[in-house]
Amino acid sequence: MTETTQKHQSTLDTAIKALHGRTFFAHFPENPSPEIYGADADRLGREAFEARRNQHYTELLQGEPEGWAGQEESPYEQQSLGIKYPYFAPQTLIERSEKAFGEWRKVKPAQRAALLTEVLDGMKERFFEIAYATMHTTGQAYMMSFQASGPHAADRALEAIAAGYEEQTRFPEETTWEKPMGKYNITLQKTWRAVPKGVALVIGCSTFPTWNTVPGMFASLVTGNPVIIKPHPKAVLPIAIVVAEVQKVLAENGLDSNICQLAVDAEDRLITKDLCESPAVKLIDYTGGTQFGDYVESLKGKTVFTEKTGVNSIILDSCDDLDKVAQNLAFSVSLYSGQMCTAPQNFFIPETGVTVNGTQVPYEEVVQKLAAAVTGLATNPKAGPHVLGAIQNPDTQKRVEQMALNGGRSILAHGTVNNPTFQNARTCSPSIYEVQSSQVEQYSKELFGPIMLVIKTKDTQESIRLAAQLAREHGAISCGAYTTDQEIKEQIMDEMSLAGTPVSFNLTGGIYVNQNAGFSDFHVTGGNPAGNASFTNPEFVIKRFTWVGFREPAPAAV
Amino acid sequence: MTETTQKHQSTLDTAIKALHGRTFFAHFPENPSPEIYGADADRLGREAFEARRNQHYTELLQGEPEGWAGQEESPYEQQSLGIKYPYFAPQTLIERSEKAFGEWRKVKPAQRAALLTEVLDGMKERFFEIAYATMHTTGQAYMMSFQASGPHAADRALEAIAAGYEEQTRFPEETTWEKPMGKYNITLQKTWRAVPKGVALVIGCSTFPTWNTVPGMFASLVTGNPVIIKPHPKAVLPIAIVVAEVQKVLAENGLDSNICQLAVDAEDRLITKDLCESPAVKLIDYTGGTQFGDYVESLKGKTVFTEKTGVNSIILDSCDDLDKVAQNLAFSVSLYSGQMCTAPQNFFIPETGVTVNGTQVPYEEVVQKLAAAVTGLATNPKAGPHVLGAIQNPDTQKRVEQMALNGGRSILAHGTVNNPTFQNARTCSPSIYEVQSSQVEQYSKELFGPIMLVIKTKDTQESIRLAAQLAREHGAISCGAYTTDQEIKEQIMDEMSLAGTPVSFNLTGGIYVNQNAGFSDFHVTGGNPAGNASFTNPEFVIKRFTWVGFREPAPAAV
Repeated sequence: MTETTQKHQSTLDTAIKALHGRTFFAHFPENPSPEIYGADADRLGREAFEARRNQHYTELLQGEPEGWAGQEESPYEQQSLGIKYPYFAPQTLIERSEKAFGEWRKVKPAQRAALLTEVLDGMKERFFEIAYATMHTTGQAYMMSFQASGPHAADRALEAIAAGYEEQTRFPEETTWEKPMGKYNITLQKTWRAVPKGVALVIGCSTFPTWNTVPGMFASLVTGNPVIIKPHPKAVLPIAIVVAEVQKVLAENGLDSNICQLAVDAEDRLITKDLCESPAVKLIDYTGGTQFGDYVESLKGKTVFTEKTGVNSIILDSCDDLDKVAQNLAFSVSLYSGQMCTAPQNFFIPETGVTVNGTQVPYEEVVQKLAAAVTGLATNPKAGPHVLGAIQNPDTQKRVEQMALNGGRSILAHGTVNNPTFQNARTCSPSIYEVQSSQVEQYSKELFGPIMLVIKTKDTQESIRLAAQLAREHGAISCGAYTTDQEIKEQIMDEMSLAGTPVSFNLTGGIYVNQNAGFSDFHVTGGNPAGNASFTNPEFVIKRFTWVGFREPAPAAV
Repeated sequence: MTETTQKHQSTLDTAIKALHGRTFFAHFPENPSPEIYGADADRLGREAFEARRNQHYTELLQGEPEGWAGQEESPYEQQSLGIKYPYFAPQTLIERSEKAFGEWRKVKPAQRAALLTEVLDGMKERFFEIAYATMHTTGQAYMMSFQASGPHAADRALEAIAAGYEEQTRFPEETTWEKPMGKYNITLQKTWRAVPKGVALVIGCSTFPTWNTVPGMFASLVTGNPVIIKPHPKAVLPIAIVVAEVQKVLAENGLDSNICQLAVDAEDRLITKDLCESPAVKLIDYTGGTQFGDYVESLKGKTVFTEKTGVNSIILDSCDDLDKVAQNLAFSVSLYSGQMCTAPQNFFIPETGVTVNGTQVPYEEVVQKLAAAVTGLATNPKAGPHVLGAIQNPDTQKRVEQMALNGGRSILAHGTVNNPTFQNARTCSPSIYEVQSSQVEQYSKELFGPIMLVIKTKDTQESIRLAAQLAREHGAISCGAYTTDQEIKEQIMDEMSLAGTPVSFNLTGGIYVNQNAGFSDFHVTGGNPAGNASFTNPEFVIKRFTWVGFREPAPAAV
C-alpha cells in the first residue's frame, strides 16, 4: 500500500494546491479526443455499454445476490435497457457496511486518499463507457455525458479526496505538551485521531448519476466511512461502474470490497427510506427533489448533506451587446433541456427595457430577442439536438406540455427537436411564458425542464429584490446578472451573497451560468434552502469525522 | 483600524501557529501573581466587584433600558448581590442586532479579528474583577474563578478568533481563472466572500459564565455575525464585563455597539425561547442541561452548537501507585464540587480488584482507598475549601442530600466543608455510592454535583464496554483510564474514540482529567450526545459563514 501512497502523492499535493489557488485546474482532460484518450477509446466504450444491454450486471464484488433488479430505460430510445443489478436487502447492506467499517477506519487517511485516487485512474479508463451509460439513462447529449459523468465528476471526486486528506492531516497526530508550572514542568504525550462517523449513504439523482454522487461518496470514503451508494432507479449504470472500480481497488489491496456497496431498489419497492432510517447510518448525502430532501434533513442523529431544488434567476439590467447576451442565455436554458440544477428559470426584465450601450431597448424587443435566440438554437440541426439532449423523465415532458400559467402569457410554445441519430428521442424545446412580478406564486417553484419564465418588473431594483427573496425563501444554486453599472453590480453581489447564491456577471461567448468548475467554484453554498452541502467547502469533509484526543504523562526523560 | 490590525497581527499569527502545533501555548498567564498582573491588581479587582453590589450595572452601551432586572446571589454568602442589569425586550434586541449586522458583516475578517483581540487585552485588565464576579455567582473557589473565567477563557476566545480568521482567509479573495480551450482561453475574474449567517445567540450556563460563553461568542463575532449574549440569570456579571469590553472597543472604532448585546431575563420570566425562536436568529451556541439543549437542537433553520451533559467515566484496570491514583481522582471529583462538565462520575472497578505493580489489590481495598482520599482532601482545611469551592445551586445540594439509590450501597456520606472565609458558604463534600454493573439505569444519568458512583464490574472488559456504551448513548466529555497494559490501552482508545470521547491515561500528580488546555485539547468532540460543538475544531467556525463566489469575464488584455 505504501507504493500506492507514493504513486499518488504528487496528484494529491497538486490537487490540494489547486483547492487553495482556485485558478483553473483539471486533472482529467475534458476533451474526448482520440489524441488524449486513444484512437479506440470511444468505440470500445460504446461497445462495452452495448454489451451490457439485457444482461445481469456481474462486475460487483458483493457476493451472491438475493435477487436481480433493474428498471432503466433510454430517453433516446424510450425502451428498457434490460440491465439487471444484484439486489440485497437493506439490512444485508447495513450489516456488511458495519463490518467493513472496522477495517476501513483503521486504514490511514494518506492510504485511503491514495487508494481512492487509484480508483479515479481506473474510472478514467472507462470514461467512454460511463458516457454512453449516462446518455442512455439521463438523456444528456454525448458531449455532456462524457464531460459531466467522466472528467468533471472525477475532478470533483479528486477535489473531495484532496480536501478530506488535507483536513485529516492538518493537525498533528501526536505531540509532546509541556507546561511550565514554575518549579517544574508538566509533560503530556498527546495523540489525536480523526474518527469517522460510521456507515454513509449516498442517494443519487436521475440526471447527474456520477457528478452529483461522487463528491459525497469520495468525501465519506476518504474520511474512513464505508459507503452504500443508492442510485436513482432510472440511472444506475454510470455509478455502478464507478462502484465496481472502487471494489476492484479495495480487493486488489486486500481490503473488504463491502467498504463500498451498490444498493439498488427492488423491482416492486424503493429501499431508500429503509436505509435512511437505519440507526447504523450516520451520514447521508442526497441529491434530488426538495420534498424527499426535507425528509432526509429531518432525520435525527444523522449528519446530512443535501442538494435539493431551487429557482435560479437571471437579472437583466444593461449590457454592451444584447444579441450575444440572448445567445448565451438561450444556450443556458437549452443545455440538457433545462434539467440542470444550475439552469436559469426566472428572467427578470424591467418593463422599461434594458440599457444597451447607453440606449434603452424596449422590454418587448428584449423578450422577442430571447425567444428568437431560443428558437434559433433549437431549430439549428447542427446545434439543437447536441445542446438539448433528451428529456430524462416522461413527467418532465408532460410538465412542459401541460403547463398552464394562471394569468401568464405564452411567448414561445415548446416544440419537438429532431434528433438525427435517435428518432424516438424524448425531446422538447424550451417554452417561454411571461409573468407579472406581482404573481410570485407563479414563479417561486422550480419548474424542472425546459421552461423559461420572463418576469416583467418595474425596474432593476425590483428584479434584484425578487431574485434575492426567491433565493432566500425557495433556494437558488446559480444566478446570472447583466449590468454595466458598477453600483448595481455591487448591490447584486451584496444582496445575493446574503441569499447564499453565487452570481455570474455579464457572461457571453463560450461560458455559461450553468457551468461550474471543480477546484475553483464552490458548488451550492449551504446558505439557502437549495441545500446545505457545498462542494468542496472544508465543511463538506470536516463534518464526516470527529477529532478525539488522548493524553498521558510523558515517560520521564532519561 | 489599520493600526489595530497591525498591532495584533503577531498575536494572531502566533495563535494560529499554536492551533496547528497543539503544544503548550497560553497568551494569557494563568498565575494571578502580583509580579505578572501588578501589586494592586487583586485588590482593585475585588473593590471593583464590591462596588457593584446593590447597584444598577450602567457600563453597557445599549442605550436607555426598558427596565432593570437581576437575580444573582452569592453561593458563598447565600444572599442576593443586588445588581440590576438593563432589560430590553427580545424584539428590541433582535431588531438592533439585525441593524448592526449590516455594518459588522462589511468589516473585513482581519479587522474583526484585530478588534476582538483588542477586546481580550481589555478583558485582561479586568481578570480579577471577573474572578470575584465568578466566585460570587458560580461558587467556584478563587483560583478557579480567576483561571477559568480569566486567562483560560480569554485563551479559548483567542483560539476561536484565530480559527475564524484563518478559515476566512484560507482561500483567496480573488483570482484570475484562465481555461485553455484549444484555440483560445476563457478568462474569468473570480471573487469570493465569506458571508456571515446573521444574528447569533449565545446562551450561557450558571457554572462557567465566561469560559463556556466566549468561544461561541468570539467565533460568531469574528465571522461577521452580530451576537446577543443571554447569560444564565444566576451568573450574569462575569460575562456582562466581557460584553462591556466588546462594546467599548466597537464604540472606540466608530462601530455600532449593538454588534454585541447583553440580554437578561426579565424579573418575572425567561426570554431565551423568545430569542431562540426568532426567525432572525441564525446561529445558537448553548451550554447547559440536555433537555433545553435538545430543544435548541430541534429548532429548524438554525445552525446550532451545543454542550449538554454527559456521564464521564473512570476505568480502573492497573497502575503503578494506587495511592497517587486515588489522590488524583479524589481531586478530580472534588474540584468545584463536581460541577464541571469534565468531572468524572462513574468509576468502573472490577470485582477482582486492580493490579498494582503486578499485585492484585482487592476491590474493597481500592474502594476504601478512594473514599479515604476523598475524605482526606475534603477535611484538609488547607486544601478542601479551596478545591471544593461552593455549590452554585440549592437544587444541586438537595440532589446530594436526598440521593437514594435503588439497591446501591453508600460508601461515603456527604458532609459539609468548613470555609474559613465564608461561614455561610453552600458546601457539600462528595458522597460515594456503589452500584452493580447490571443496574445501568442507576448510573446512566448525569448526577450533577459532588456525587461519585463506584460501579462494580466483572472485569476490565465489562468496564470498557459499559463506559463506551454510556458515552455513545448518553454522552461524555471526558474519560480517565488507568492501565499499564498496552493492549488494554489501545482497546480503550479504539472504543472510546468510536464513542467520541477523549481519554486521559494514568494521570497522577498535578494534572487532572477535568482540565482542558486551549490550543491543544479539543473540548467536546461532537461525536456523542454530550453536544455537537468542539472547541476549536475548524467546524466550530466554518459553520458560521458560507462561501459565495462571483465571476465575470476578465477585461481583455491590452
